Amino acid sequence: METKRVCSPALEELLGHTFNLLDHGLIRVIDYMGDDSSIVQMARVSYGAGTKSVSEDRGLIRYLVRNRHTSPLEGCEIKLHVKMPIFVARQWIRHRTASVNEVSGRYSVLPTEFYVPDSDVVKAQSKDNKQGRGDDLLPMHVENFQRLCNANARDFDDYLSVLETGVARELGRINLPLSTYTEWYWKIDLHNLLHFLKLRVDPHAQYEIRVYAETILNEIVAKWVPMVYDAFLEYVLNAKTFSATEMRIIRELSEELRSKAFFDTSLKGRELSEFLAKLES
Amino acid sequence: METKRVCSPALEELLGHTFNLLDHGLIRVIDYMGDDSSIVQMARVSYGAGTKSVSEDRGLIRYLVRNRHTSPLEGCEIKLHVKMPIFVARQWIRHRTASVNEVSGRYSVLPTEFYVPDSDVVKAQSKDNKQGRGDDLLPMHVENFQRLCNANARDFDDYLSVLETGVARELGRINLPLSTYTEWYWKIDLHNLLHFLKLRVDPHAQYEIRVYAETILNEIVAKWVPMVYDAFLEYVLNAKTFSATEMRIIRELSEELRSKAFFDTSLKGRELSEFLAKLES
Amino acid sequence: METKRVCSPALEELLGHTFNLLDHGLIRVIDYMGDDSSIVQMARVSYGAGTKSVSEDRGLIRYLVRNRHTSPLEGCEIKLHVKMPIFVARQWIRHRTASVNEVSGRYSVLPTEFYVPDSDVVKAQSKDNKQGRGDDLLPMHVENFQRLCNANARDFDDYLSVLETGVARELGRINLPLSTYTEWYWKIDLHNLLHFLKLRVDPHAQYEIRVYAETILNEIVAKWVPMVYDAFLEYVLNAKTFSATEMRIIRELSEELRSKAFFDTSLKGRELSEFLAKLES
Amino acid sequence: METKRVCSPALEELLGHTFNLLDHGLIRVIDYMGDDSSIVQMARVSYGAGTKSVSEDRGLIRYLVRNRHTSPLEGCEIKLHVKMPIFVARQWIRHRTASVNEVSGRYSVLPTEFYVPDSDVVKAQSKDNKQGRGDDLLPMHVENFQRLCNANARDFDDYLSVLETGVARELGRINLPLSTYTEWYWKIDLHNLLHFLKLRVDPHAQYEIRVYAETILNEIVAKWVPMVYDAFLEYVLNAKTFSATEMRIIRELSEELRSKAFFDTSLKGRELSEFLAKLES
Repeated sequence: METKRVCSPALEELLGHTFNLLDHGLIRVIDYMGDDSSIVQMARVSYGAGTKSVSEDRGLIRYLVRNRHTSPLEGCEIKLHVKMPIFVARQWIRHRTASVNEVSGRYSVLPTEFYVPDSDVVKAQSKDNKQGRGDDLLPMHVENFQRLCNANARDFDDYLSVLETGVARELGRINLPLSTYTEWYWKIDLHNLLHFLKLRVDPHAQYEIRVYAETILNEIVAKWVPMVYDAFLEYVLNAKTFSATEMRIIRELSEELRSKAFFDTSLKGRELSEFLAKLES
Repeated sequence: METKRVCSPALEELLGHTFNLLDHGLIRVIDYMGDDSSIVQMARVSYGAGTKSVSEDRGLIRYLVRNRHTSPLEGCEIKLHVKMPIFVARQWIRHRTASVNEVSGRYSVLPTEFYVPDSDVVKAQSKDNKQGRGDDLLPMHVENFQRLCNANARDFDDYLSVLETGVARELGRINLPLSTYTEWYWKIDLHNLLHFLKLRVDPHAQYEIRVYAETILNEIVAKWVPMVYDAFLEYVLNAKTFSATEMRIIRELSEELRSKAFFDTSLKGRELSEFLAKLES
Repeated sequence: METKRVCSPALEELLGHTFNLLDHGLIRVIDYMGDDSSIVQMARVSYGAGTKSVSEDRGLIRYLVRNRHTSPLEGCEIKLHVKMPIFVARQWIRHRTASVNEVSGRYSVLPTEFYVPDSDVVKAQSKDNKQGRGDDLLPMHVENFQRLCNANARDFDDYLSVLETGVARELGRINLPLSTYTEWYWKIDLHNLLHFLKLRVDPHAQYEIRVYAETILNEIVAKWVPMVYDAFLEYVLNAKTFSATEMRIIRELSEELRSKAFFDTSLKGRELSEFLAKLES
Repeated sequence: METKRVCSPALEELLGHTFNLLDHGLIRVIDYMGDDSSIVQMARVSYGAGTKSVSEDRGLIRYLVRNRHTSPLEGCEIKLHVKMPIFVARQWIRHRTASVNEVSGRYSVLPTEFYVPDSDVVKAQSKDNKQGRGDDLLPMHVENFQRLCNANARDFDDYLSVLETGVARELGRINLPLSTYTEWYWKIDLHNLLHFLKLRVDPHAQYEIRVYAETILNEIVAKWVPMVYDAFLEYVLNAKTFSATEMRIIRELSEELRSKAFFDTSLKGRELSEFLAKLES
């Protein structure tokens, strides 16, 4: 089809492609709106007009991301088809600024698909992180857990058999495990997507949602809006925030930092001034 | 404690009270802000000032609800503690304009509590409603289903045993059933609460969420904001909307309806004029 | 450009077109995502799969709109460039579920453009509608008002002159009138757009925002998603809601209405059953 | 009135108090819900139970704010009555996650109240900040600008005179200046309030909205939720974020920073570990 709309050629190539994740999960890009250039266009309404060069576009996008001017990023949208275990979907849905249409176990008979983690991701409760996993387990304990996961097949047999006796679908499903796969269409704007990704590619996020977030970030966002992707890594994902107290300590070395910055030359112009300004109390 | 804030005496009495629902569920009112009078106060900022009588307050609230002037209702807030099965929580969370803090199976060991429906609510798949339940089942099929529900106790035994072998809590829980109880603090404004209630007291809502919605509506909202409650029943819950085509049919009888309305006298003043206006094409 | 995305050919033709409104206002479609078919696709995830005919698509969309199943409509997005007087922008911005980038009077010098209403829309304060206009005015009073509107040119002269003396733009602008034109990029999903349109094409909406809403509805939405447009007129815009008390009166004539409905044949199948069900108490 | 709800004694004292701002502006606290302790209560649902000491409450709140765990802060609400110039209201309303009821110039005749800036805040356009004010102006230019501001009195005379000729209020007002005062009730949760405050106490925010934000932060939030206030200053307002590139420079001095941190002793326990972790690449 021909369109007068802004296109992202690299994302167009992903339309129709399926990313397979975990044992039965998937992500597919269904539709999108906008690209790097439409963010620039949105921003220039507010911050002054004029066609500019690609390098000025890049500079503007970096400025927007660095200073958390988020409304131009809200102008881009993406719609994904995602299939994931229900316990992952329950974490995912906590992000409220998105539109969701999920398969319904009240309408449809759910297929016999449930998540069984690979041996190398079955780990012990973390000692220092109350909500995470950490050290290796004895192989027998890994195997025992996987055996129990696989035994969920029985729940699906029971589910199908009670449906056969006529029990309503909305009731029959309540004995299925949280590892059951569900799927949905999920539509979100780029600003809220990046917020989701920041939280869900974090090492503290549960592994099973992290693999989805990493695929969206590195396989999809990187191709769709490469300038935003670079700025997001530089100013958000790999940035660090220091408290007032921490800043007091850092500022004790402000002279050394200042001369490092001048010597290093990786910071220039406005970014160099901003760095120096942060070192002033 | 003494406060200068607006108080709802009838709701104050419910603070600390627990409504028990299903086999292990509950609702408790934790906190609230505003009452009928604060809606009136919000509305009078926009629509003109002046202290008015109680009957004028009632008229203003009925006017707001009838004409979907929703922002004054957003000025009231309520915070509930709710405990419900996970499959109910999954329907509940679809209402996005609310704040939620849920117990986390990544942090805490979940108690052995899961929903087993009473015999009288285990029904067959509805024939005319693809997403509901309908006719009675043979008692043996009801018993069989309940037996399977009760067998979930085994999943909790397995869960505790794998935690004992050291498996991370975030993994151990994935084999628990969708009938497992969870709990959360849920804070929402009155406008969005009424929207939730309209959808969830509907006969098409699943029975297990409907009992929560009915308790919130008839036990809590009715006491908290009695004028809003009456207006909600009159103008929203028990109102009916007719399409353009249906209106064409109704208007064929507009003369008869007009004389009924005059004769009946239950519609007066502005509401009578509005009724007559709707009958004009 | 070629795209694999869903396209709306009729809307594509509007890309680049400018709708002129009022004396200096405009609407342009900048970008969009989705069409009627993508709503159907979103809905079928939840309500069951299978490729269907165009007439089944139409039936599904009418079902969704009639029953306020709004999430599939959230899957479509549109981005508009709009120029309108500030007093119109102030009403518009009250719709919160949208993304906005507005020209900033802190950054840019605002052009000398302000709204002067045509003689035929300068009317007297309405007698029965506290917030509207009604009867004709004496021509001399219309002319007097327009003369005062035109005199705002002086405010723009003063504005430019104080900027010339060096006064900050963010201060200089505060003496400009509410009739000053502003512009923004506005991005919204179809569900929230229809809600905006329902409120703003209403005869109670101020004339100056109504002309924008009517253009968006009848010139843009009608071409973009024609099935949704028809369903919106039938089930929302030209529908009427009757209160519980009004329904009691209507139900007194339920037998006559029932036979009219059978005789009329414009209601068929599920819609006929729904009509009859509404007549039952 | 007596209440079983959580009370904030220091905020109770402010109920009924009026903060006067600019020449005719004001802020009044109308109502609120929750305090520091209710944030702790919300958080403990998710992160594990148990009554704790005040110092543990403080630690938990600091942890939540430091790590941007925002949902427990959404559990607190505040409702303010605010009167401000329209150009300030236009910046304010861009914060969408709030409920607003504003006085309507379609319903009511607006009082003759408009903002005239004090001499000491009328400044020249900033040279390095495209959207701000900077250096002093010649006194004659300040006086000239104030004279023009005061001349807006004429617009109000004209407004009243056209209303007298019968022109509709919704039209008559369009020639009033952007400096006209408006007022509204504004209700927002604590998380979104802090986001508003972060942006609006910033030196880049326009002076006239900054005075409102500073009053809300330092006079109201500080009394309402003192633990959150302290944590917000420490971890948000006075914190600094460094990009990946800036972190590379800082990490060149990580050994010196580490020894400063040990020597300084203002960072302890988890915060010290977090600081050291940030210095690792």
